[in-house]
Amino acid sequence: MELHGANILGGGVSSAGGTTFRGVNPATGAALEPAFHEATEAEIDRALALADAAFASYRKKSPDDIARFLEAIATGLENLGAELIARAHAETALPEARLLGERARTAMQLRMFAALVREGSWLDARIDRADPARAPVPKVDMRRMLLPMGPIVVFGASNFPLAFSVCGGDTASALAAGNPVVVKGHPAHPGTSEMAARVVQEAIRACGMPAGIFSMVHGPSPAVGLALVRHPLARAVGFTGSLGAGRALFDAAAARPVPIPLFAEMGSINPVFVLPGALRSRGAGIAQSMAKSVTLGVGQFCTKPGLALGLGGADFDAFTKTLSGEIAQSPAATMLHAGIAEQFRSGFGKRRGISGVNLAASAAPDASSESPGPARARSAAAYAAVFTADSQLFRDEPSLGDELFGPATLVVPCETKQCLMDIATKLAGQLTVTIHASEEDLAEFAPLIGILREKAGRLVFGSMPTGLEVGPATQHGGPYPATTDPRFTSVGTAAILRFVRPVCFQDFPQAWLPAELKDENPRGIARIVDGAWTRDPI
Amino acid sequence: MELHGANILGGGVSSAGGTTFRGVNPATGAALEPAFHEATEAEIDRALALADAAFASYRKKSPDDIARFLEAIATGLENLGAELIARAHAETALPEARLLGERARTAMQLRMFAALVREGSWLDARIDRADPARAPVPKVDMRRMLLPMGPIVVFGASNFPLAFSVCGGDTASALAAGNPVVVKGHPAHPGTSEMAARVVQEAIRACGMPAGIFSMVHGPSPAVGLALVRHPLARAVGFTGSLGAGRALFDAAAARPVPIPLFAEMGSINPVFVLPGALRSRGAGIAQSMAKSVTLGVGQFCTKPGLALGLGGADFDAFTKTLSGEIAQSPAATMLHAGIAEQFRSGFGKRRGISGVNLAASAAPDASSESPGPARARSAAAYAAVFTADSQLFRDEPSLGDELFGPATLVVPCETKQCLMDIATKLAGQLTVTIHASEEDLAEFAPLIGILREKAGRLVFGSMPTGLEVGPATQHGGPYPATTDPRFTSVGTAAILRFVRPVCFQDFPQAWLPAELKDENPRGIARIVDGAWTRDPI
Repeated sequence: MELHGANILGGGVSSAGGTTFRGVNPATGAALEPAFHEATEAEIDRALALADAAFASYRKKSPDDIARFLEAIATGLENLGAELIARAHAETALPEARLLGERARTAMQLRMFAALVREGSWLDARIDRADPARAPVPKVDMRRMLLPMGPIVVFGASNFPLAFSVCGGDTASALAAGNPVVVKGHPAHPGTSEMAARVVQEAIRACGMPAGIFSMVHGPSPAVGLALVRHPLARAVGFTGSLGAGRALFDAAAARPVPIPLFAEMGSINPVFVLPGALRSRGAGIAQSMAKSVTLGVGQFCTKPGLALGLGGADFDAFTKTLSGEIAQSPAATMLHAGIAEQFRSGFGKRRGISGVNLAASAAPDASSESPGPARARSAAAYAAVFTADSQLFRDEPSLGDELFGPATLVVPCETKQCLMDIATKLAGQLTVTIHASEEDLAEFAPLIGILREKAGRLVFGSMPTGLEVGPATQHGGPYPATTDPRFTSVGTAAILRFVRPVCFQDFPQAWLPAELKDENPRGIARIVDGAWTRDPI
Repeated sequence: MELHGANILGGGVSSAGGTTFRGVNPATGAALEPAFHEATEAEIDRALALADAAFASYRKKSPDDIARFLEAIATGLENLGAELIARAHAETALPEARLLGERARTAMQLRMFAALVREGSWLDARIDRADPARAPVPKVDMRRMLLPMGPIVVFGASNFPLAFSVCGGDTASALAAGNPVVVKGHPAHPGTSEMAARVVQEAIRACGMPAGIFSMVHGPSPAVGLALVRHPLARAVGFTGSLGAGRALFDAAAARPVPIPLFAEMGSINPVFVLPGALRSRGAGIAQSMAKSVTLGVGQFCTKPGLALGLGGADFDAFTKTLSGEIAQSPAATMLHAGIAEQFRSGFGKRRGISGVNLAASAAPDASSESPGPARARSAAAYAAVFTADSQLFRDEPSLGDELFGPATLVVPCETKQCLMDIATKLAGQLTVTIHASEEDLAEFAPLIGILREKAGRLVFGSMPTGLEVGPATQHGGPYPATTDPRFTSVGTAAILRFVRPVCFQDFPQAWLPAELKDENPRGIARIVDGAWTRDPI
């Protein structure tokens, strides 16, 4: 596939703007061909107008048609074979095996949503039947189900160039619900984005879908993202990325003349609580798996454990030592792009500069020169690290609770159970909280479990938070700043609920009801009829 | 019950502030005893602190305990007997029969949520079982359900002093989900609010609930509402009221350091489409029921039909004439308070002043003196009215699409089918859209139905939008400006979804899982296990 570098606008391409940029190989710093065209205001407007116009016919497509379309995208991604993997590797430095796994996950997600759409019970159909004999007034017939909202804006994330990007979970869930999608490709992997977008274009052609239901625009400039979020025809937004960018877009969505929902997943520090019994019986094993989790994908996961907490003492010291030893031996690795590596080094330097913070381990060949020198500043190399801080410092210094995106973590021993509880109580919202505990720990720290339940979208017991399973029970979300709305998830089948709204049809003639609300229940979906779940016809 | 005029803070009362106000009888303008104390910053802070502290024990209450608590509130409201109705009548001028009906609805809502909580399937429990044998990595066990969010701020609405006020649907759904509630009582019915709040206090005592789960503060000043929404311990907000107030609170919630979801239901114009076949066969009947719907409760329903649209001609003229005749004969009525009546008269005057807008009917004794004179301005009296405007003016003058809260409506004949479609396409978001159509109309106007589906939360066929039925299939919401988030409803069992968030428990020991997620399914709720609905244990 020869890359054209243009914006994908429905069935066509457009490169009207004069501002161009290139993908960069983060391992070498070399710019990659071709040049990509940042979208102009007119191109953004065109993308949304096409999406809006296509909505009327897309929403009439049968569930089976939509499912086959999603499956065609999955197959198209697979059919790109080694070419896609090679380009993604060149743009992100992620290893081939990881990218193959990520493509498999991306295809699986698309097929998972296809299956969800075919089965249909997710539509939450509810029927309250009429009662003409009710006094003092007859009861009307009400039937309610979830319907698509219209054009959805999706932001590709840098750290999953396939699974959270052009054809990732946001796009899959929005399309599955019956919405057109306009993606802003992440500027760190524009070639990968174009390849994925062209797969969608081809699937649209092959499946006879309206061309306008998918566009993908390029834009390193924040203005492009803001223009998408502010566009009057946009109905909702899905974003994965940094707190700064996510909050700026959230503010823009809320400040519109007509505000729209924006779900931003902005990461977290994913604390790991290692309680005394667990520490005693398998502290070394936990430390080893934590080291793997911290360095997995060069620490570039939203669920990277950025904090370990426990009761100070010999066992916790041993845990910290094992963790530090593992981290110190981890090889240098290349981050997704130079900017992200610079941010990591800068955050590393700031953290190291906090009085009382100790650098317990660094994988850097010469830890004293960890601060970026002229040569290193130009590369995307990063070295893993373990910091330690005492519990008082952790409570006094708010920046220690901020995410440091990259292969670093912080270990905080607490003097007392109460101190551990206090820190737990004051934690900001998290995507995940992990607990390592023995039976005795659980009994002794029962109130801690209650506290932690309020802090995160996912509570992990006995393992590590990285390696998120994708399914109906997935919750990838959490209280702010993990996300902008703790009531939703961006991963798993429930991600579709971000992009639908309920509509109630009152006293509608059968012929004019959606199939899912008709008496005979032709699709055989689970419905709530007069308050009770059933798949039966009426 | 002797009213004390204090703020209700958990189990106690507080009247620390020096600013007081009184309820006013809108029919006479007479101030009612006693004086009520506007809450101070410290009292607001105390209400939220009590709520936050009580959350830890309230969320551990059994579903049956919460259900009995909700039922005790319902019974308590009923047991207030005529005293509550008399006070509500004095404060709102709503007739006794209406208030009795509204109390019955309020009690019914509380019992409906009690039944929902007891049954338990609403918790959307999902279990994805582990597969230790899966390659390349074992599959973990994930279990997800909805959990309460914490303190919810609820704003009482003026137009339903019981059903959308202190013990209304917002409070009932928030408490049912396991959240503490802090209500801001509406200043137009402070005595009714105090009586209802004391019923909740008594139910808390009788049911052994933690006292802090409920507070009610008074505050005519916008500062009180803003302080509640901005309070760091508030987790979500429910509001029903005007677009101006709702948007100001929404902006405040979004601008917090930690943004929180705010669901504001802000009303709409609820267009009624009367298509030619329906007009021909029963135009007079539709006009009569529309007149009733416009004047019901002095036009003070969020779902009041504020716009009738159809194809111009003799049949539509006859419809307009019948509607006008009915409206002209409707008696003068008293609005909820002088402020709302002033707004109505002012909006009436502005609309009348638009060149091309015709006052087709007015119930005022002397229509020429409809603009507020000195005497009328002091009372809350209002006269019903019908305006007409041609379709071009409706499209050119945006204020004709704004809600005019009170007993007035606007009739717009369209020259062509295309003109009707154009107006439908440009409609802002609505709580409801109503369609009167024959079989032939539906066939001929099929695209119109598709357009209207995108505009509202509830589509009503063949009747009027007022008189909302409350149940599982209710959708009282819609695209902005009807609400701030079209994905939620403030009425019906689904209203509870505003105040809960999903939490996933990964690999948790059975003993530490919530009952709803345990293998044996002790509550027998419907769950999604490995993607399929079942009530079976695992």
